[in-house]
Order: sequence, then structure tokens, then C-alpha cells
Amino acid sequence: MSEESSGNTKKVEVVLSPALFPAYFESTDCTVVVIDVFRATSAICAAFESGIKGLIPVANLEEAIKYKSEGYKVGAERNAEVVDGFDFGNSPLGFKDGKFKGETIVLTTTNGTKAVDVAKSAANVVIGSFANLTAVCEYIEKADKDVLLFCAGWKDRFNLEDTLFAGAVAQKITQNLRFQNISDSTIAAMNMYDAAKDDMYGFLGNSSHRKRLSRLNMEEDVIYCLSLDQTDIVPVLEGDIIVSNKS
Amino acid sequence: MSEESSGNTKKVEVVLSPALFPAYFESTDCTVVVIDVFRATSAICAAFESGIKGLIPVANLEEAIKYKSEGYKVGAERNAEVVDGFDFGNSPLGFKDGKFKGETIVLTTTNGTKAVDVAKSAANVVIGSFANLTAVCEYIEKADKDVLLFCAGWKDRFNLEDTLFAGAVAQKITQNLRFQNISDSTIAAMNMYDAAKDDMYGFLGNSSHRKRLSRLNMEEDVIYCLSLDQTDIVPVLEGDIIVSNKS
Repeated sequence: MSEESSGNTKKVEVVLSPALFPAYFESTDCTVVVIDVFRATSAICAAFESGIKGLIPVANLEEAIKYKSEGYKVGAERNAEVVDGFDFGNSPLGFKDGKFKGETIVLTTTNGTKAVDVAKSAANVVIGSFANLTAVCEYIEKADKDVLLFCAGWKDRFNLEDTLFAGAVAQKITQNLRFQNISDSTIAAMNMYDAAKDDMYGFLGNSSHRKRLSRLNMEEDVIYCLSLDQTDIVPVLEGDIIVSNKS
Repeated sequence: MSEESSGNTKKVEVVLSPALFPAYFESTDCTVVVIDVFRATSAICAAFESGIKGLIPVANLEEAIKYKSEGYKVGAERNAEVVDGFDFGNSPLGFKDGKFKGETIVLTTTNGTKAVDVAKSAANVVIGSFANLTAVCEYIEKADKDVLLFCAGWKDRFNLEDTLFAGAVAQKITQNLRFQNISDSTIAAMNMYDAAKDDMYGFLGNSSHRKRLSRLNMEEDVIYCLSLDQTDIVPVLEGDIIVSNKS
């Protein structure tokens, strides 16, 4: 909200759903953190930690199939399950053995990779999850731009876990006085993270997506996705490919 | 979320912005509560309490001008101020003297009346504010349908005050076991209302819209808008006109 601007402080806004992105995206000169805690952005962090070279996010299955025909290893997830005929889904544990080390892989997911597509015209687009919380906050401070903490949600609906992560980032970065210009959605996200942070697993017990993953026996994934600072890599979008900020 | 349905319980979903309405509106057989606490829906409640017969909500100024040329008393607000040439804005205190008693008036506002327009195909569309909190909850229970608590927000952005009211309604109606099927946005709204309910005025101290109203010397309006149960009327949409459920 431009009327709220003051001095050189940077805005910190939480975008609670892809459908709200146009209402908050006022200038390309910003850092967008794409957040899909369960599980796309957690999986992308895990994939980089395991040594992949790059990841091409694609928004739809048609594109994913095209890459597969070209010989890429391609992951595809819809409604929390691996799509038949693809090499992997969006389980972060699927990358633990480093089997794609050094490779550039392709991924399409229900929400996360679509959110990357929505955000791609921003100056900085990075991948955030609890797995790289501290690293993302350091990246944001160094970039020193307005920040959109962009929750991928679930099919345009609000979800709790992405909002909690946005609140965690907002709490950390607003300790730096340059990031003080916060919106209502940021206040809400920080408030929720405060209520949840001592027991996120319990807080999310009634959330729609934790219940969805529990039904699919993905509790181990949930535990990984809620574990802080598993990596110091920030995956960043360069052109059409996500690469490590350390490469 | 159809996958979350169980038995005969009714869904309670909070729609945090007009831009999210399509993601939640799955069937017209529901009750939609339109919420614009600062100040359209608070003002509409105050207008009915003061004795107006009906209110025609219009989405744009062109329509409002047309009604004015036909002799109607017409209110128009944009960016929290009365638009030049119109009879009133959306201050609830403007109706206190009962000057429109028995009349059908016309209103267009930045967010609230647009939200009514977005929701109008639902079976029941009602106007909610802290001014009629208990009455709205009783209406919802009697209607016994799925519920969308629809926050008008601010130009498609999330706002805190509408979310708090949605949380207040959700807390009350889920005491009735028929309303148990809640979504992530409902959990978030109830959580926020819990954090705020003992001092809503203070909780909203940093919110964008309370600051906007404070700059415009509208503190008295804010106080009215946060006062519970000023009326037992539920304004309901019938065709293109909002009328009292008591008439």
C-alpha cells in the first residue's frame, strides 16, 4: 500500500493465495519468496541440498511430458500423489539418496510450480520452506528490496502451513528495522506463527493438507517439512531454471 | 472441500478476499455473509436499525448516478470518503437520526457493495457486522446451509477487521455441532479472533484501515463498528434489494 510507505523502509507483504498476487504485485523490483510447505518448496530445498544442479519448474503436465520425451528426469504431482508415468513426485524424502546429483531435473506440482510461474516477472524469485528459513531471511536482507511472501495455497485457497512460514520469515526480517512496513496479512501471519511456533505439528493437526497427507501415509514428509534449517541453500529462479544461490 | 465433508455437517469457510470467492463458491445452496466491518456492512446494519425500508447496493458510480437522477437518496464512498455530489457515505453514525426512515436508499462503496454483487447468486446473501453478530449467527443456524463468511477486504487485499468478525461468527456457530466442517481459513480466523477479542481496538491499532480512518478523524465510526449487537436485524438480499429479515 503506497499510502503506508515511509522513508526507505521496505514493505513486507504476505500474499495468501495465487489469486491475490495481482492485488499485491505493484512493481517487479521486489523479492518474491514462493512458499509451498507441503511439499513442493520443501522438496525443492531437499533436492538442492542433495546436489541437483538445476530444476525447471513447469506449470502443467503437457510441458512436463515434453521434457520427459527429451530425456529429462521429470517429477509430477497432482493432488498429493505422483502422476503415473513420471519419475518422482514432491516428497522431499525422495531426494535423500542424492540420485539426481549434478543433474537438471523438471518438476510440476499442484500449487508450488504454478506459483513460481505467477511470480516469474519479479526481480528476485526464490524458493522458501522451513528447510531453508534462516538462509531465505539472509537472502532477503541482502537483496534489500520490498518483499512478497507468496503462499502457494491449495488450488487458490488459503492454507495454514504456508501462512505459518510467511509469519516466521516476517518475524525474523522485521528485527531489521529496514523491513518495517507491514500489511494486514503480515500482521495476521506473524500472529499465527506466534500461536503455532512451539508446536507446529499440533497446530496443523486440523489443517486440511496435513489431514490429506496423513490419509496418504505421508507423516514422515510432514515432519521433514516442519523441520527448520535443513539447508543453507536458497534456490533462486534464473530465467526459466531454478538454481542454487551457492553455485 | 468436498473431500472433507462428513455426514450432515455444514461447511464453514472463510473467504478472505473477493478474489478468492470463486475458489470457495461450489454451490449456490449456501448462506453467504458479506462482511465489510470498516464500514459498509456496519453502516447498512445501522441504516436498518434506524428504520430504512430497503437498500439497493450498486457496484459502481455510474449506476449510483442513474438512481440519483431518478430521485433516490444515494450514498457513495470511495477510499473512505463521501464522493462529491452524493447524499451520504458509509458512516454508520450518519443514520443515527433516522432521516431515511421508511425509505429505500441506494449505496455504493469501495469494497462492501461490490462483494454483495460478487455473492448475489447464492441462495442466501446477508449483511454481517459486529453490530448484528448474534442475529447473524441465529440466521445462519436457522438457514442450516453451508456457510461462506465473505470478507470484502480492501481492493482484493486481505484485511484484519473483516477476518476478526468472520472468526467471531465461526466461533459462535461451531458451538452447534452441525457446523463442524471447517477449513484452514476458518481455523485462522477463529485463532485471530481469540487473540484479539479482549481488545479489538488495540489489536487493530496497526491495521491499514484503522490507520486510514484515524487519519480521516473517523475514530467514532471505528468504535461503533467494533461494538457488538447494536441491532437484532439481519439485512438480507432479495432480488436486487437488501431488506430487513424482520419486515
